[in-house]
Amino acid sequence: MSKGIIVQKYGGTSVSDTSRIENVAKRVIATRKKGYDVVVVVSALGDTTDKLLELAHKVAHEPSRRELDMLMSTGEQVSCALLAMAVHSLGADAISFTGAQVGIVTDASFTKARILDINAKRITCALKDGRIVIVAGFQGASPNQDITTLGRGGSNLTAVALAKVLRAKVCEMYTDVDGVYTADPRVVKDAVKIDKLSYEEMFELASLGAQVLQARSIEFAMKFGVPIHVRSSFSNRAGTIISKEVKAMEDIVVSGVAANKNEAKLTICDVPDKPGIAARIFKDIAKEAINVDMIIQNVSRTGATDISFTVPASDLTKALRVTKDVSRKIGAGDVTFDRDIAKVSIVGIGMRSHSGIAAKMFEALAAAGVNIEMISTSEIKISCVVAKKRADAAVRAIHKKFNLGK
Amino acid sequence: MSKGIIVQKYGGTSVSDTSRIENVAKRVIATRKKGYDVVVVVSALGDTTDKLLELAHKVAHEPSRRELDMLMSTGEQVSCALLAMAVHSLGADAISFTGAQVGIVTDASFTKARILDINAKRITCALKDGRIVIVAGFQGASPNQDITTLGRGGSNLTAVALAKVLRAKVCEMYTDVDGVYTADPRVVKDAVKIDKLSYEEMFELASLGAQVLQARSIEFAMKFGVPIHVRSSFSNRAGTIISKEVKAMEDIVVSGVAANKNEAKLTICDVPDKPGIAARIFKDIAKEAINVDMIIQNVSRTGATDISFTVPASDLTKALRVTKDVSRKIGAGDVTFDRDIAKVSIVGIGMRSHSGIAAKMFEALAAAGVNIEMISTSEIKISCVVAKKRADAAVRAIHKKFNLGK
Repeated sequence: MSKGIIVQKYGGTSVSDTSRIENVAKRVIATRKKGYDVVVVVSALGDTTDKLLELAHKVAHEPSRRELDMLMSTGEQVSCALLAMAVHSLGADAISFTGAQVGIVTDASFTKARILDINAKRITCALKDGRIVIVAGFQGASPNQDITTLGRGGSNLTAVALAKVLRAKVCEMYTDVDGVYTADPRVVKDAVKIDKLSYEEMFELASLGAQVLQARSIEFAMKFGVPIHVRSSFSNRAGTIISKEVKAMEDIVVSGVAANKNEAKLTICDVPDKPGIAARIFKDIAKEAINVDMIIQNVSRTGATDISFTVPASDLTKALRVTKDVSRKIGAGDVTFDRDIAKVSIVGIGMRSHSGIAAKMFEALAAAGVNIEMISTSEIKISCVVAKKRADAAVRAIHKKFNLGK
Repeated sequence: MSKGIIVQKYGGTSVSDTSRIENVAKRVIATRKKGYDVVVVVSALGDTTDKLLELAHKVAHEPSRRELDMLMSTGEQVSCALLAMAVHSLGADAISFTGAQVGIVTDASFTKARILDINAKRITCALKDGRIVIVAGFQGASPNQDITTLGRGGSNLTAVALAKVLRAKVCEMYTDVDGVYTADPRVVKDAVKIDKLSYEEMFELASLGAQVLQARSIEFAMKFGVPIHVRSSFSNRAGTIISKEVKAMEDIVVSGVAANKNEAKLTICDVPDKPGIAARIFKDIAKEAINVDMIIQNVSRTGATDISFTVPASDLTKALRVTKDVSRKIGAGDVTFDRDIAKVSIVGIGMRSHSGIAAKMFEALAAAGVNIEMISTSEIKISCVVAKKRADAAVRAIHKKFNLGK
């Protein structure tokens, strides 16, 4: 009698070479031996994706997106076939499938397709036959049978979607770290692993710079109510469980602190204080597919105001061009920028029911002599933009102030 | 108005790196510009197949054949996507497909599947849209949608089968040589390119050691009456046309001479001369999947005879074991072997209507002082086993005797 289905997802670092693939095979078999049906989702081996992209850019400056998906999807196909072989050679039964083969139907937005439907019949049949099922992550097929890929973090999406459809007990995300920490352990020595997080907290942490899981896959898990267990493929210790908010979580006011050093700040000076101006600015920026993060506008005193906002550092050049353009059109002043910034944030479900959290954070920064350039808050997070070179000090000060190291 | 469909197949050496892929893209576009609809079949890039096999054997001693096909088929998928990108970046329209996507249905004999059916609707639709169609060679899918591969020379099979289904005017096989030669040009300096060959002649030449095309794809082309044009992807010169026998071909008595140095000879001494003994011997050998080539048995004088036969050199160890075993069981004598042999053969449709060809070949060998160890003949070929170190001399002597250099 099966104890239920567990979906396990192994990222590129967990299958970067054949000895690591064997390690994964052992873990998968161990889970099966505990009495679970196991469905495994794998990413491409280590740097395969980069190597394939390099080939594509050698033959074409702007490769067709349909052909890119045809090309890139081979990476996961290779790793799932190899993992199936490795499981076989340890004496267990396994079968590998591409996304198309397990009926992952997506729209035809190549390189960033959305899953429309999953017909998991082949998976459930194979599980009934007692087999370990291994699925190539990151990919599907359009209704027209063209191969598609799901964009960044696509293998996580595959895992979460399969967990949902198969009604799995849990979706285990294997990575090279033990779980989610209260802060980056490389920056804060006494950072500790968080045992439980709500989807909302993890979503904010991911958006704010915690590298463990992409925001998109958390969103997906939250939407479908799939419990996630983030853990290391190199140890047997429990990692971080991410699930629906439970009452106990509210006792923990701040779950973690994160820093994002990959943003840049732009400021448009002397913006006329008229209705519709802000809309005009950010519509033009959105047209260029630039993600704007924080936006700050102070009250106008003179009929003109300054508007500041942050964008991913990689989009700065593009953002500057558009912003200067729009500034001229609306009769605003100079556009200034700063790439030496960092966004430091705290996240916690408990903030909703506790007051004074922002003040405590600002106190911590003040005591550490860190100047705050911008502030932005939401229901469960507070972010401050500070000078990039003071970011680590800020994180340490906040971590200590909230006693996150316990 | 299209002038008809041309199928072009490019082997691994023609697409071994990105600059060669660009070269192929140019050729493909040039053919399209001449007014033909073009369907391209590609092999995997250079040594991809070896690299993937190496990975498989690192994770499993005896990899599952289903998973091997899942793995190996990615090689051709990569090259067809890259070729499509290269065609795009030269401004022409192209679309790539896997074997499964173009409806190449095979049986489920993984690693050596047979094509059952081809539903070429996606190809004809894409051609109607004015696109160049690029198909991953070597692969198909079973009725169950499992990915299969067609075994050695599988991309040639894909090309020939598509040419048949699409009623193509010709199937062009691109390789790194100019065509089929009267003898190996590395051995015989005045060897010349053959302009036309019948399927039967090419089939024999391929079986006898000419490396240009595998016997299996010739057999297929012959069965379906698909004209083949073997030519170089590095020049624009016409190569060798292989087609149905036409009257003029009979005037050429001997088309070419080939040597195969990868065989070994075994001899079972003192075999009892009783009915059923030979059957017994070769049934046991066939059970081990060893391909026996020539078999020679002389008339018995003493109630016992010697039986000699040749096998691929790579099978010698296995063949020796089986043969010693069977020899003991049937009460025969010692088993001897010789790996220093070569099979030198002449092939020609014209032999059927000309006598004295064998005698002329033996004369040539005698004059060159080459001793003949075994002889085997068919309607359109004569093979002699000689010492391996005399094989090149034998080929040169025969080439000269029949005046093949013209």
